[in-house]
Amino acid sequence: MIIIKLGGSVISNKNKPYSFNQEIIEQTAEEIAQFYPNEQFIFVHGGGSFGHPNAREYKIREGLIGDVKRKRIGFSKTHQAMLKLNSLIVETFLEKGLPAYSVSSSSIFLIEKGEIVYGELEVLRKLLEKDFIPVLFGDTAIALDKGIDILSGDQIINYLARMFKPSKVLFLMDVDGIYDKNPKEKGAKLIKELTKEEIKHLLESSESAGIDVTGGIGNKLKKALEIAHYTDVYFANGMVKGNLIRILKGENPGTIIKRW
Amino acid sequence: MIIIKLGGSVISNKNKPYSFNQEIIEQTAEEIAQFYPNEQFIFVHGGGSFGHPNAREYKIREGLIGDVKRKRIGFSKTHQAMLKLNSLIVETFLEKGLPAYSVSSSSIFLIEKGEIVYGELEVLRKLLEKDFIPVLFGDTAIALDKGIDILSGDQIINYLARMFKPSKVLFLMDVDGIYDKNPKEKGAKLIKELTKEEIKHLLESSESAGIDVTGGIGNKLKKALEIAHYTDVYFANGMVKGNLIRILKGENPGTIIKRW
Repeated sequence: MIIIKLGGSVISNKNKPYSFNQEIIEQTAEEIAQFYPNEQFIFVHGGGSFGHPNAREYKIREGLIGDVKRKRIGFSKTHQAMLKLNSLIVETFLEKGLPAYSVSSSSIFLIEKGEIVYGELEVLRKLLEKDFIPVLFGDTAIALDKGIDILSGDQIINYLARMFKPSKVLFLMDVDGIYDKNPKEKGAKLIKELTKEEIKHLLESSESAGIDVTGGIGNKLKKALEIAHYTDVYFANGMVKGNLIRILKGENPGTIIKRW
Repeated sequence: MIIIKLGGSVISNKNKPYSFNQEIIEQTAEEIAQFYPNEQFIFVHGGGSFGHPNAREYKIREGLIGDVKRKRIGFSKTHQAMLKLNSLIVETFLEKGLPAYSVSSSSIFLIEKGEIVYGELEVLRKLLEKDFIPVLFGDTAIALDKGIDILSGDQIINYLARMFKPSKVLFLMDVDGIYDKNPKEKGAKLIKELTKEEIKHLLESSESAGIDVTGGIGNKLKKALEIAHYTDVYFANGMVKGNLIRILKGENPGTIIKRW
């Protein structure tokens, strides 16, 4: 089984609310279609410019505090926005003949301190058994600690990798992989492979190493470190045609973190 | 806790695909708002002209047989259509200040012979604890016997009533309640109250009794018979303003089947 995470920045322009990169989703579906049904897939996507504006406006990450009436409304609105993005993706997959099936992350996961502490996977297992491609997404979720919170797509990937032990986990992003510094900086070099020790070293001494492990990529590396207990983890550019195919054929167009 | 089932025929015109009775949903939300948050609610709605055309076109009830590729696509399309209807309802509730939250029925239930045999209720419980109003819906669902099937809103109500022991279950329909014959026939009389024995008698000798227990109402009565083990069951006209309020105040504008 393969688990694919399609980053929000691949799906939509973060600066343009509710923008949807239809062509990239079609391309992704076409590439998956070359391996389905020989291979099982679980697909998880981020929030892009659908989830984030709502989550920010209502400060969902704060939890169910302050004006809780407004918070509850915003929590549900954020979920609705994510369902809209999810339906655009699922419908594109269906048009390409892939039996994608939407599973609402918030209907099956409970979180605490931002991590999944309870997951109901029986429906997912049955969908896979019947040759469906479950499509989950970064979502709002009930949190045991602060009432409500945001459940990131990366957290879902981490949990599913632990539970399903896929043969590969793919993170498709809007850059080519992990770089030795911020990829927007001049002279940034793509790292082709990272070992457990290198990642640990990077995370521990991120500043002195001069590597951009802040924000998104830093969290991603932390997650990758955990996921690589179970499977090979690939980071690649989801905008580049053929990258998904290359990875599924065993190549490494971006960065690989091999299972240890 | 109150569980409300809003029938598909109240929400949309069955003969008009994707029609949505916005005013009735607003009215329903306004009436619920008079009792929330003093009272907890779970809301379940039917498919109306969103779910049924897809379910029919792809013959979902047949199961995963025949052209299974097309069946899978149709299964997912039917779910997508239901999600669209669900989002119209949830968003109307949110506009009226009610913290409705969509829970995908197919993400938490597995069925066999049309009945729920597995239900994951932890997220529902937590949503109620945090004062949300979970909104579920008749949906497609993975079936242990035939692969895929339709899960009716009525089945969901039955399962939830067993699990949550609500103080009342309301079936809001497009007629005033249970009649002594087809309500479209001349001289049909509304039955104000039905006992266990009367329902059993009706179901056993439906023809000789001259009562319309065919199709929808027959199944509803069978379900009501089971639900009344746990709680009072009300049937009423969901199009009539004030009916929901009347029931929640203890009146009976339609038909009541008292808990035995």
